[in-house]
Amino acid sequence: MKNILLIGAGRSTISLIDYLIDNLEKEDWNLTVADQNIDFTKSKIGSNSRTSAIQFDVNNEEQRSKEIGNADIIISMLPAHMHISVAKDCIKFKKNMVTASYVSKEMRALESEAIQNGVTIINEIGVDPGIDHLSAMKVIDEIRAVGGEILEFETFTGGLVAPESDDNPWNYKFTWNPRNVVLAGQGGAVKFIQSGTYKYIPYHKLFRRTEIIEVEGYGKFEGYANRDSLMYRSVYNLEDVKTMYRGTLRRPGFSRAWNVFVQLGATDDSYTIANSDELTFRDFINLFLAYNPTDSVELKLKHYLNMHQDDVALFEKLEWLGIFETTKIPLKNATPAQILQYILEQKWSLNKDDKDMIVMWHKFIFSLNGEEKELHSSMVVKGEDSIRTAMAKTVGYPVAIAAKMILNGKINTPGVHIPIMKEIYEPVLKELKNFGINFSEKQIR
Amino acid sequence: MKNILLIGAGRSTISLIDYLIDNLEKEDWNLTVADQNIDFTKSKIGSNSRTSAIQFDVNNEEQRSKEIGNADIIISMLPAHMHISVAKDCIKFKKNMVTASYVSKEMRALESEAIQNGVTIINEIGVDPGIDHLSAMKVIDEIRAVGGEILEFETFTGGLVAPESDDNPWNYKFTWNPRNVVLAGQGGAVKFIQSGTYKYIPYHKLFRRTEIIEVEGYGKFEGYANRDSLMYRSVYNLEDVKTMYRGTLRRPGFSRAWNVFVQLGATDDSYTIANSDELTFRDFINLFLAYNPTDSVELKLKHYLNMHQDDVALFEKLEWLGIFETTKIPLKNATPAQILQYILEQKWSLNKDDKDMIVMWHKFIFSLNGEEKELHSSMVVKGEDSIRTAMAKTVGYPVAIAAKMILNGKINTPGVHIPIMKEIYEPVLKELKNFGINFSEKQIR
Repeated sequence: MKNILLIGAGRSTISLIDYLIDNLEKEDWNLTVADQNIDFTKSKIGSNSRTSAIQFDVNNEEQRSKEIGNADIIISMLPAHMHISVAKDCIKFKKNMVTASYVSKEMRALESEAIQNGVTIINEIGVDPGIDHLSAMKVIDEIRAVGGEILEFETFTGGLVAPESDDNPWNYKFTWNPRNVVLAGQGGAVKFIQSGTYKYIPYHKLFRRTEIIEVEGYGKFEGYANRDSLMYRSVYNLEDVKTMYRGTLRRPGFSRAWNVFVQLGATDDSYTIANSDELTFRDFINLFLAYNPTDSVELKLKHYLNMHQDDVALFEKLEWLGIFETTKIPLKNATPAQILQYILEQKWSLNKDDKDMIVMWHKFIFSLNGEEKELHSSMVVKGEDSIRTAMAKTVGYPVAIAAKMILNGKINTPGVHIPIMKEIYEPVLKELKNFGINFSEKQIR
Repeated sequence: MKNILLIGAGRSTISLIDYLIDNLEKEDWNLTVADQNIDFTKSKIGSNSRTSAIQFDVNNEEQRSKEIGNADIIISMLPAHMHISVAKDCIKFKKNMVTASYVSKEMRALESEAIQNGVTIINEIGVDPGIDHLSAMKVIDEIRAVGGEILEFETFTGGLVAPESDDNPWNYKFTWNPRNVVLAGQGGAVKFIQSGTYKYIPYHKLFRRTEIIEVEGYGKFEGYANRDSLMYRSVYNLEDVKTMYRGTLRRPGFSRAWNVFVQLGATDDSYTIANSDELTFRDFINLFLAYNPTDSVELKLKHYLNMHQDDVALFEKLEWLGIFETTKIPLKNATPAQILQYILEQKWSLNKDDKDMIVMWHKFIFSLNGEEKELHSSMVVKGEDSIRTAMAKTVGYPVAIAAKMILNGKINTPGVHIPIMKEIYEPVLKELKNFGINFSEKQIR
């Protein structure tokens, strides 16, 4: 009998918990779900003699040591910056661990200790990062196996709303943490390489540097660049690749409209507005516009950002959000980003029966037998409703499968890893098909 | 006999040292100049039985305590962030202190300790901040004295090149720390209030929100907003003022061209470019432009930033800087801001005989006897050459005069101050006239 300790039971863990519970008997597992919110956690795991919910504070060293010491594997679904104390205890008690988060510097620094203690820590095995690594490495290895050489690699992922629930001019709703959506792209210049030339994009230009892609059966999307793509050259062992570009997908037109908020400064989270609870949505927009004693907020905005008077596609998005209305902001001492998030949440929240959609698209250009070839690979996953979302599935299932593989001894190389090895991606991708998470490949030339 | 300890003998301290040396005999002072670079310091103070130069490391606690303990007053001309350890020692040894820097949070926090120990610390008594406080408070107090009420206050200062040395299309040269010029406006949104409405400008819009002002005899200037103007409402005791705006002056056209570098991301100091020493100036600009297999860097730049093909005034500024040339960048692992600074230093450095110029301009709108009135007050100071600059004079003389007043017991209120009291601004402004630092006032209506 094996004990699984799942730490953190937030919104995106429902499919992970489903999977673990479905396999308790067959695999002879016990599951402990540890979260700050015990009632919510209890409601998620239901009643089962093999499950228990505990109230858990990751900063409580005694409790953390005890629970980690009692488990055979630890799955941490905490926010990224909270994994480290868990990882250190895992190494101390020689327990394996799985997370869906980006490997932080602090996590990377644990590599040699993990190896010395025979501990395996798998990270970046959710969705972007996660399924993108699995599916890209599969194609890259296949191309190499027949003697091809990868010349260019681009990969895009988007968490969007499914077409059947898409009923607003932005073609967008919040399907994960709204704060992260508002702050997306902040925290350093975006870096990539294109056709052998390094490219750097500052935040205020990011949403004007989009590419259009098409996914068969799902129409057009636009992509903007994501964080530091350069470091993935070494991660994927593509040191000499001429293009390495990781991006985020939205429906066409989103980025141009979102850029309005970026240009205004309305996504700034670095200072608070002292009188924010005295302001209306309209006042909020006016904070960022040059003073004019007679012009309306709408007119000032159009002039300031050089919008065409008849640019209906752009302006209807802004109006639909209610940003020109005189609704009061109920937040005290809030940052611009917090106020904008509040305004967006009034409009962009999923309804109970809304379905979300994860779209992933890879483009590989490679040379084979002296010819240049192009291959596209894409995945579309839809949620069932606003609880069992595509986001929850694509994050949760690969995490669960990786945990199972570690428990069954199929992943057993100690160290701090991301899932780029065939021994991991092949079985995970295979099992993901059972859940409708599936890639279509298309040879373009 | 009084001992003056001057810590930090950088470029802008020459006039301060001149003043102190000129008054050594008359005032019965000894002067110790403490700096990391002893040779440079020695050359500055010449030979005089009342002066000495010492090699000084502000982080050497023993040396710091000893020298501060031996002095009667400490003038710190160190970079702003290095004043705190000096200020703490001044409080410990009950010594008064003068700096030209903005009062930091850490400095402000020393207020009650300073009072308890009977120590006076005068800050912000150079130029912007400094002479702007002195001259503005003089007019504000005069208006109040006759029963007027200040409705609006705007103040602008610029460190520029004098017309007779102005020989480039930017009408600009570096007259103080080039790094601060490249990074100007970064580090948080600009905040001010205009006609009763709060306004916030993000960095990427700052250089497009300029105002034009004219100074009689010196032509037109443009101003962009400076840091947080809001806090100066309480500092100047103008809590209900409808406009409070502090800005920086450049010659018209500067900001629009500088904005090109801001938009590109070329002023970013947050990341390094790994292969910077392999790049040319032209490659550097190309890092920020969207990839295109055929278009020239010039054409891509024009398209990207929506420049008109015939916008000669803008484009000649960029070309004149040499940014399209294939000169190698000799810096390893440099940030964009460091590379841009290097490029600018090739062109914007003062020649030996060049004169700089400090321009300050205040606008007061006030009500008096039921009527709305407007008064402008302005100051223009030119340097003698590239050593005895206007910057050195306008920073150094008020600092020196404040130090003298403290030594003579004319400033004796303990605490952390900025020079807004009549007891300080009146005598300082009066003495500054001897050095050609003088305001003209003009009643507009």
